[in-house]
Amino acid sequence: MSHKIVNLRVRDVRFPTSLEQHGSDAMHTDPDYSAAYVVLDTDSGLKGFGLTFTLGKGTEIVLCAVKALAGLVIGKSLQEIVSNFRGFYRLLTSDGQMRWLGPEKGVIHLATAAVLNAVWDLWARAEGKPLWKLLVDMDPKQIVSCIDFRYITDVLTEEEALDILVKAQEGKKQREDQMLKEGYPAYTTSCAWLGYSDQQLKQLCSDALKSGWTRFKVKVGADLEDDIRRCRLIRQMIGPSSTLMIDANQRWDVAEAISWVSRLAEVKPLWIEEPTSPDDILGHAAISKALAPLGIGVATGEQCHNRVMFKQFLQASALQFVQIDSCRLGSVNENLAVLLMAYKFQVPVCPHAGGVGLCELVQHLILFDYICVSADLRNRMCEYVDHLHEHFTSPVVIQDAHYMPPKDPGYSCEMLEESVNRHEYPEGDIWKQEIKK
Amino acid sequence: MSHKIVNLRVRDVRFPTSLEQHGSDAMHTDPDYSAAYVVLDTDSGLKGFGLTFTLGKGTEIVLCAVKALAGLVIGKSLQEIVSNFRGFYRLLTSDGQMRWLGPEKGVIHLATAAVLNAVWDLWARAEGKPLWKLLVDMDPKQIVSCIDFRYITDVLTEEEALDILVKAQEGKKQREDQMLKEGYPAYTTSCAWLGYSDQQLKQLCSDALKSGWTRFKVKVGADLEDDIRRCRLIRQMIGPSSTLMIDANQRWDVAEAISWVSRLAEVKPLWIEEPTSPDDILGHAAISKALAPLGIGVATGEQCHNRVMFKQFLQASALQFVQIDSCRLGSVNENLAVLLMAYKFQVPVCPHAGGVGLCELVQHLILFDYICVSADLRNRMCEYVDHLHEHFTSPVVIQDAHYMPPKDPGYSCEMLEESVNRHEYPEGDIWKQEIKK
Repeated sequence: MSHKIVNLRVRDVRFPTSLEQHGSDAMHTDPDYSAAYVVLDTDSGLKGFGLTFTLGKGTEIVLCAVKALAGLVIGKSLQEIVSNFRGFYRLLTSDGQMRWLGPEKGVIHLATAAVLNAVWDLWARAEGKPLWKLLVDMDPKQIVSCIDFRYITDVLTEEEALDILVKAQEGKKQREDQMLKEGYPAYTTSCAWLGYSDQQLKQLCSDALKSGWTRFKVKVGADLEDDIRRCRLIRQMIGPSSTLMIDANQRWDVAEAISWVSRLAEVKPLWIEEPTSPDDILGHAAISKALAPLGIGVATGEQCHNRVMFKQFLQASALQFVQIDSCRLGSVNENLAVLLMAYKFQVPVCPHAGGVGLCELVQHLILFDYICVSADLRNRMCEYVDHLHEHFTSPVVIQDAHYMPPKDPGYSCEMLEESVNRHEYPEGDIWKQEIKK
Repeated sequence: MSHKIVNLRVRDVRFPTSLEQHGSDAMHTDPDYSAAYVVLDTDSGLKGFGLTFTLGKGTEIVLCAVKALAGLVIGKSLQEIVSNFRGFYRLLTSDGQMRWLGPEKGVIHLATAAVLNAVWDLWARAEGKPLWKLLVDMDPKQIVSCIDFRYITDVLTEEEALDILVKAQEGKKQREDQMLKEGYPAYTTSCAWLGYSDQQLKQLCSDALKSGWTRFKVKVGADLEDDIRRCRLIRQMIGPSSTLMIDANQRWDVAEAISWVSRLAEVKPLWIEEPTSPDDILGHAAISKALAPLGIGVATGEQCHNRVMFKQFLQASALQFVQIDSCRLGSVNENLAVLLMAYKFQVPVCPHAGGVGLCELVQHLILFDYICVSADLRNRMCEYVDHLHEHFTSPVVIQDAHYMPPKDPGYSCEMLEESVNRHEYPEGDIWKQEIKK
């Protein structure tokens, strides 16, 4: 069956998370976790669901961009798209008029992610497999045929990519079995948002330890003395053998990042995340160099806007942990390129998640990465935030601080119709009540 | 008078330039030069006009973004804005929810440019001066107070910026007089768009020579043999003493750029413009290094999305010509930062123009640069394209291939009401006729 796409619908879904400071950090003090939520209808009745994550205001701009892309999608069959997926990726990202709005960055690329995530979901459903399994079972040649190598051939050619994938076929079955049994290691960011009180922080930390968590991330960057106090508190709670990461969400300039993080070295963070502008490759390289003697790595990626930027972060040794995001890059297609480049440079991938739906999506990518690319779990873990999973039809399953491989067909993007209706902005019940206040 | 902004209107204005292949290049084969056009109304009756340039499809997305920013502008007085312009810049670019859509890149930054361009226009009108003169007369301290130094202090601090401006006060009056008399040197891109026939090319070249042009830019990148033929033709037409530049509009990967441009070295281009992805700082650095022995520089900037990127291009010696754009960066505020960084690295600034309104706007910035920053004309020139000027109330004045300083108050952004009405998309007469075809 060809599954011809006959309609594309997009909705503005917002959760009022700012009310309780969930998700608050040094640069985003009041996020309302939101999504531009895409549904593809096909002539067979099969649907594809996709989304891109946003922080509230401005989600309507992404919707507008999705609508501008819709004309390139409607009328095509799934068959037609996946038989030349690289071409389809380029069709969306290189339209002669629309590429001026990016190219491959910002609103237009977030919209591209939402649309392509829905296409991948549709494909996985058509094959009756969870997305990670669709990828794992795919022939290496077909995998590389999904990737647009434009602008990255100086670091990774199609031939090299194929070679990496072919070599990693060895032991694939065992790793798949291992994942099905043990799951993929996770860390939690739920304990220490910047807006939380010390008491809240302690309570959450204590609960998390009881649930088996051993890796914790803390938001920093607003006030140094406060950071020292909070980080000491957490390190005391979790003990010396647990892993601690800190995240500044782009708060500093280069010199400030180095001096601030040096002061926090005493709590032995594994990494400092987003110390400065997400565009500043050379700045991250300088910070990496300065912090290496302290044993602190640099992590970034959730706002790294495309494969060309990731390429340079790797070339410049500007990061020690690659944080791919399922909704910022051009979906699976572009993330495949980043996973392969990270492998080439032997830099571990530790995906960004949280928000709304990011955990649901990115778990598929990191499972594929372990089973078919890296074959390595050292220094690798996937972010987990315990928010908003109840709105999805196939929510993540966490067992003993591990992501258990999803079993339902698709990319785990589908939200409950009831949740979408209630949270649609500005007409849903939740927002009508909010507006009334 | 405080000039309180009481309303912000934004319109989608498109010109069907693709019909005659004006503006066609290797990546943008059918652009319809367009603008998101902003009008600020104040309680005093004074208006501010601003725009950002687009290529047709997707302009409605930028409009949507402008509307999302409007709430941060309406209700503020000009006085209030300019007395803390750095703060206002950051208010627009660092909103805790909307910055996720960028930050400072793509659609949201184009929208920021349109809004801030209108604010600068309003300010210049309120002072009764053309924008370049407003800047030239401004105290260096006030200039730096308009700049957000976040993320660039590792290369340029506020103190250094002030120092550059104070030192350049010497000779300012003479340079201003010189500009008023001679104008700022320009080059033309109007002769050699990729879609033009050889005959058209020859005719345009011959006409341009008669009008005093000595600097010419040719679009390349679609077909090597064709490029060689066309470049030879143009070099033959303009003779050995005229200047030739070539522009690939991001067509190549790094290795391909080097080999392709090496083949074109025989026509002695001054620069190759946009050889690869606008995000690829390290790629441009590699290309610069490889082409330096051939005497060919690298130019880029029209899609360089913010000051953090320009900073790195300069740090990495990745360009030899800085091409600022009046509508891609966050208006005058952010361009001031780039002009000062370029000065620090002693790299000449040769602005990008053309499109619709870009010549009108950027001439103000480069006049300021010469009079108050660089004090240097060597290897410097401003792009000129002879399109669509007739739609502006204060169109550029070119004399003997020089931009003559604008005299009317404002930033030269105002379009004729009649032009806007006719070209508004999709309701204007021009588009109703196009749709009928």
